[in-house]
Amino acid sequence: MTPPDKAEAPDEFALIAELFVPLAASAPEALALKDDAALYTASPGHQTVLTVDAMVEGVHFLPDDPAECVARKLLRVNLSDLAAKGATPKGYLLVTAWREGTPLSWMRAFATGLATDQQIFAIALWGGDTVRTPGPPSFTLTAVGEVPAGTMLKRGGARVGDGIYVTGTIGDAALGLKVLQGGLEGLDRVRRDWLAGRYRLPEPRMAAGGALRGIASGALDVSDGLMADLGHLCAVSGVGARIELGRVPLSSAARAALALDGGLIEAIAGGGDDYEILFAAAPGREVEIADIAAETRTPIVRIGTVLPAAEGVNPVDGAGRPVAFKHLGYRHF
Amino acid sequence: MTPPDKAEAPDEFALIAELFVPLAASAPEALALKDDAALYTASPGHQTVLTVDAMVEGVHFLPDDPAECVARKLLRVNLSDLAAKGATPKGYLLVTAWREGTPLSWMRAFATGLATDQQIFAIALWGGDTVRTPGPPSFTLTAVGEVPAGTMLKRGGARVGDGIYVTGTIGDAALGLKVLQGGLEGLDRVRRDWLAGRYRLPEPRMAAGGALRGIASGALDVSDGLMADLGHLCAVSGVGARIELGRVPLSSAARAALALDGGLIEAIAGGGDDYEILFAAAPGREVEIADIAAETRTPIVRIGTVLPAAEGVNPVDGAGRPVAFKHLGYRHF
Repeated sequence: MTPPDKAEAPDEFALIAELFVPLAASAPEALALKDDAALYTASPGHQTVLTVDAMVEGVHFLPDDPAECVARKLLRVNLSDLAAKGATPKGYLLVTAWREGTPLSWMRAFATGLATDQQIFAIALWGGDTVRTPGPPSFTLTAVGEVPAGTMLKRGGARVGDGIYVTGTIGDAALGLKVLQGGLEGLDRVRRDWLAGRYRLPEPRMAAGGALRGIASGALDVSDGLMADLGHLCAVSGVGARIELGRVPLSSAARAALALDGGLIEAIAGGGDDYEILFAAAPGREVEIADIAAETRTPIVRIGTVLPAAEGVNPVDGAGRPVAFKHLGYRHF
Repeated sequence: MTPPDKAEAPDEFALIAELFVPLAASAPEALALKDDAALYTASPGHQTVLTVDAMVEGVHFLPDDPAECVARKLLRVNLSDLAAKGATPKGYLLVTAWREGTPLSWMRAFATGLATDQQIFAIALWGGDTVRTPGPPSFTLTAVGEVPAGTMLKRGGARVGDGIYVTGTIGDAALGLKVLQGGLEGLDRVRRDWLAGRYRLPEPRMAAGGALRGIASGALDVSDGLMADLGHLCAVSGVGARIELGRVPLSSAARAALALDGGLIEAIAGGGDDYEILFAAAPGREVEIADIAAETRTPIVRIGTVLPAAEGVNPVDGAGRPVAFKHLGYRHF
C-alpha cells in the first residue's frame, strides 16, 4: 500500500461508478457493485463452472490494439473456455490494473467494448477490483457459467477410435498477428485486415459448445495452438492421435497466405489464439455432429482420429506421411 | 501473444506441475488442474459468494516483502472479504503474473505460503492462469465461498440507532507499513516487528464473520481505513454515524506509538489494511455479540452509533467534540 494518490489522478470510486456500475446494472448478483462480493444462486440441478484468464499489454495484446478489442477479447477468451466445457455463461468478475496516465478515453472505450459483448453473450459484470500499476496495463477476468449436473465437457474422455473434430477455421489469428507485426505483405489489404480482426476478436463457440454436451467425449478450446492443444487433450485422455493436415479447416484468407508461403502451415497449426473447439467423439456420432453444425450454424469438420498413446500425436500429409514441426504451440514462459 | 519464449526461462507447464498441482490435490473441483475450468457444486440450500482482489508489487506490497507473506496476504485479504459477508471459504482461482527473471526460489516460497494458509483456512486451489509480465509481478485471487441462502451479510442494512462494532485492533497495519518504510524509529524493536507483521499478514476473522450471520445488520472488512470504510457502510445503508475515537481498539504497540506521536491517530483511523470486520447491529444484540466474541475468541468492541444520514460520518473525542482528519482513507488512484 502507498500513501493516498496524486489528486490529479482519476478517483477509483468515480471510475467504478462511471465505467463499471452500468455494466452490472442488470445483474442482481452484482449487488450494484456496492458490496464486497457477488452473490450467486446456482440454478437447480446445475453445477458452477469457473475459469480465469489474464491479458498483459505487450504479452497478450499489442500496445496499439483498440481498447474495445482488448476488453472484448478478454471476455471472449474466457467465454471460449466456458464454451469448450459446454457451459452457459452467467456473469464475470473483472480486475483492471491501469497504468498511471492511461487516458480516461481509453478506459471508457474498454468499458464500451464490454457493454457490446455483454449484449451479445447475455452476461453481466458481477464484481471486481480496480488497481493501478507502474507496469503495463493488465486485465484479469473470472467467468462464471453453469452446466446441468454431470454434463461438463472435460479434456480427459477421448477414447481410441474416436473422431477428432474442430469448429470454424484454424490459423487465422496467428496469421493476423503476423499482419499486425508487419508480415504477410504479399497478401491483399482486405485479407490482411480480416486476419487481423480474427486475432483481435475471437468468436467463442457458445452454441456449439452447449450442444456438444453428451456428444463430445473430450473437448477444449484451441488457445495455445492446434497441435499443442491436441497434445493436451491426448495427454489428459491417455491417448495418441493422427491429424490429417489437409483436413484442417482454413479460411480463404489463410489459404491465400499459404499459397504465397507454404511454410506458414507451421504458424497455422501451431500458432494459437484460435478459440475454436477441438473435440473428440465416438464413431456413430457423425450425424448428430452434422446436425449440431447445421443448427448452431457452426462449421465443424473431422480432422483426425484418436489412436493408442503409443502412437504419439502426429500430423500427417495427404499421403499419410508424418509432417515435422519445429514449434508445436505457444508456451507462456 | 509473442513468439515462443526463451528456452532458458522456466516452462509454464512444469511450473504449474511443481508449484500449483499440489495445492489443488485435495479439491475435486480443481480437476487436478488438467482442465480449462473448475467445476463446483454448491451445497444444498446455499448461495455462492465470489470476491476478487489483486496485489501489484510496489503498490500493494513491497519489493522486499517475503514471497510467503505476499501469497498469504493475497489469500487473506480475499478471505477477509468472505468473512465480512459471513461466508465459509471453499476454494480459489489464482492468476500469477511473474516478472521475467523472477527466481524459482521466490515462486516456490510463494507456493509454500499458499500451502500454509490452505491448511489454516481449509481451502484449496481450484484453477488459475500463469502469465509473464515485463512489469512488476502482480497476483490476482478469486475466492469462492458460500452462505446458507439469504444470510449473506451486506453493507446496506445498518439502521439508525444500531451500535457500530469492530473486531480486533485497528491501525496496526498502517503503523507497520510506516515501520517497513523506516518510520516510528522511537519505538522498540519488538513492537516495530510486531506492527510490521500485522501489515504483512492480516488475520481474517472467519469465525466471527460466520457467527455474525443473522446478527449484524450491515458489515464489511476494513481495508481502505476505518473512517473510509465506515463511510462506505453508511453510504450504502443511507445513514450517518458517530465514532468515539477513544473506543477504537488499539494494540499495545499502537498505543505505544500513539504515546510517542499523537498525530498517528490519523494513520490509525485512516490508514487501512486492517482486515477487521466493521459491523452494525441493532440495540438488544449486545449479549449475543459478547457471546460470539467469547466463543470465537475474537475481540469485539462497540465504537459508535448509527445516526441519520444528515448527521454525516463523524469521529468524536472523549468529550464528544468532532475530530477533523486530513485524509480519511486509502484511495487506489
